[in-house]
Amino acid sequence: MLITLYESNLITTNGLSEVKGFYFSGLAISQGEKNLGLVYSSVEDTKGVAIYTRSDIVAAPVEVSREMDDRSFVKRAILINSGSANAFTGKQGKSDAIRCCLEVAQTLKIKPEEVYIGSTGVIGQKLPMDNIVSNMSCLVDQLGINNEESFIEAIMTTDTKVKKASVKFDIDGVEVNIAACAKGSGMIMPDMATMLSVITTDADITSSMMKKALSDAARDTYNCITVDGDTSTNDTIFFLANGLAANKKIEVVDKNYDLFYRNLFELMEHMAKRVVDDGEGITKFITIDVINTQLRENAKKVAFSIANSPLVKTALFGENLNWGRILMAIGKAQTGMDCSIIEVYLNGFKIIELGEPIISDSIQKKVKESLKNRDIEIKIDFRQGNEKIRVWTCDFSYEYIKINADYVT
Amino acid sequence: MLITLYESNLITTNGLSEVKGFYFSGLAISQGEKNLGLVYSSVEDTKGVAIYTRSDIVAAPVEVSREMDDRSFVKRAILINSGSANAFTGKQGKSDAIRCCLEVAQTLKIKPEEVYIGSTGVIGQKLPMDNIVSNMSCLVDQLGINNEESFIEAIMTTDTKVKKASVKFDIDGVEVNIAACAKGSGMIMPDMATMLSVITTDADITSSMMKKALSDAARDTYNCITVDGDTSTNDTIFFLANGLAANKKIEVVDKNYDLFYRNLFELMEHMAKRVVDDGEGITKFITIDVINTQLRENAKKVAFSIANSPLVKTALFGENLNWGRILMAIGKAQTGMDCSIIEVYLNGFKIIELGEPIISDSIQKKVKESLKNRDIEIKIDFRQGNEKIRVWTCDFSYEYIKINADYVT
Repeated sequence: MLITLYESNLITTNGLSEVKGFYFSGLAISQGEKNLGLVYSSVEDTKGVAIYTRSDIVAAPVEVSREMDDRSFVKRAILINSGSANAFTGKQGKSDAIRCCLEVAQTLKIKPEEVYIGSTGVIGQKLPMDNIVSNMSCLVDQLGINNEESFIEAIMTTDTKVKKASVKFDIDGVEVNIAACAKGSGMIMPDMATMLSVITTDADITSSMMKKALSDAARDTYNCITVDGDTSTNDTIFFLANGLAANKKIEVVDKNYDLFYRNLFELMEHMAKRVVDDGEGITKFITIDVINTQLRENAKKVAFSIANSPLVKTALFGENLNWGRILMAIGKAQTGMDCSIIEVYLNGFKIIELGEPIISDSIQKKVKESLKNRDIEIKIDFRQGNEKIRVWTCDFSYEYIKINADYVT
Repeated sequence: MLITLYESNLITTNGLSEVKGFYFSGLAISQGEKNLGLVYSSVEDTKGVAIYTRSDIVAAPVEVSREMDDRSFVKRAILINSGSANAFTGKQGKSDAIRCCLEVAQTLKIKPEEVYIGSTGVIGQKLPMDNIVSNMSCLVDQLGINNEESFIEAIMTTDTKVKKASVKFDIDGVEVNIAACAKGSGMIMPDMATMLSVITTDADITSSMMKKALSDAARDTYNCITVDGDTSTNDTIFFLANGLAANKKIEVVDKNYDLFYRNLFELMEHMAKRVVDDGEGITKFITIDVINTQLRENAKKVAFSIANSPLVKTALFGENLNWGRILMAIGKAQTGMDCSIIEVYLNGFKIIELGEPIISDSIQKKVKESLKNRDIEIKIDFRQGNEKIRVWTCDFSYEYIKINADYVT
């Protein structure tokens, strides 16, 4: 299926199976839904890089994956469980995570430092080690190129949709693929990654170029979304490249890197939007542009101040033309910028000019009508510089409260 | 009525009428509920100081009151309307606010610079000037010592309760009174004041000592509450002192100042809690202590990160023992503090020690049971310094969403 919803028409929902050399599996290791997933690369020198949560409290799998980064650039497997976050589980939690890596390595006949580990679920809950160990052979046996849906289902929690996509392009006439999947629906406020996401590519690229591309792209994609302003202890983006495309190796920033980067960026932007679009209780998909500030940091502060404001989010849920709350959120960002010359647009209609409301009764009616759409656009033009940011979020609904009053994360 | 709910047993709910020399009135100047209120001091050299919102976007009445501060220390009247916030109303909004001060001054035969003005309501909506002007004589005619309830009702919006209190104490054998009222229920995240509040006293005290006492006390009271993390464009605390108690004038920081300060502090703490206690959709009153950090700023970041976390607030609404979300919120504050040695208490039960959960099944049952109480206490001991903060907040309920999806602020 071709997606024409957003900017790119190159991105398809085919997902991880588009990239040669990667195998997937997912199992239910306790009663209920699938909750243990594995990604495996058959190529010996597959490289891996990752970005982790910036929280002061990080889960054991984040600690352990970071240690694996220190020990090797090669990464051939990613084990992810859902149900237990293995966060704040003390020494036991860390040794459990290490043991998982050892079990994966032993079963796949690779080195432990070639394994990444991720967890998502309830903080404070330990890993079900007996079940993980006893199901490891079965998990490896079921690895398949076309088994990606099993893997993705295994890492989902409150997600309602399978989120995956891929992009295909040419580097000097050689076909290259990048694919991604993600889980995440609540506790979404990126400050690094913002969920668990696995990105695979068959491109031949050095790990330092992978790292640069991933962190540059994350800045304006995964790090520009928020559902509730809450940042997880477990957020990680894993990025694996196996080189099977046999393109001329990307080793420096050149036109081939740029091409690779542009495609990675579009894929990650697409996935970031998909996460918001599956935000807990979402009824509105909100895009916020803050433009023409002197510092990007100030644009970001204003954009997230709007995106995380419960009063803005509930007003949009109620389809209320309540632009005063947008101004409130701009003001409370406390950037010190001059707000007397700003222009504010809502769904394309200019409602504030030179710091004053300019909304006529007939326009007001049209703006109100437009608030019934699922897609909402807010744009603030500060008219005092050249920096900008785009941020995506959703509204706050009864359903958000219901999900989070009932669910134990 | 004597209040024994909190620390102090000196505070009564008698309110503003306890302080000699102040007169109140409140009127409905358009159809519906009371929406214009006036405070007047009969004493010629009544002093006034105020604290205003730190938002980058401030309402016209905030601008005008600040200008009145620059022109005189004497303040004899406060005019407050509800319904229109007179924020983002451009030049017209400012000239309307100035005209209000002139009208009050003319009718009361005082100087315009002796008038404070405040507004609360919908941002972008202009003042109903015709109604204000035509009702001014009537508003002044109805001024009465025992008419405080009319005034308070006139400044309420989504508030469900009249919030007022007073405290009585002796300075060198002379009786002194301080009283306060406040409006505020949503858009509550103090960063200066956090609502509209009027505090009156008959103490004889210089305006510089008033200013010091007010801002020092606000730091740990009005500035330590949050309902939704949203900061208003109109937040103001007005503080008037008329000297009628005839105590020895408080001019420097001495034991009399300390006594005055302690009572002002307790009154303001009481009022701050009352505002949270009337928070939109509240079902839980939550007290958060963060203690033993090296910097107060870090304690504050952690406390507000917990207090404003939608996931913590919805979990408590759901009466879920979901302490993982408290840890999530501690981590996302990104203070860089060592979280591996912290202790976490919930309703007095220690659930985390030395960075590990220590909660037994029997304790777990008791903690769960305690979550059914309306009052919830969270305490984080960082064990790495001597600074601390206490912050008050409420939960996020269906009712919060309902109020804010329907109401236009």
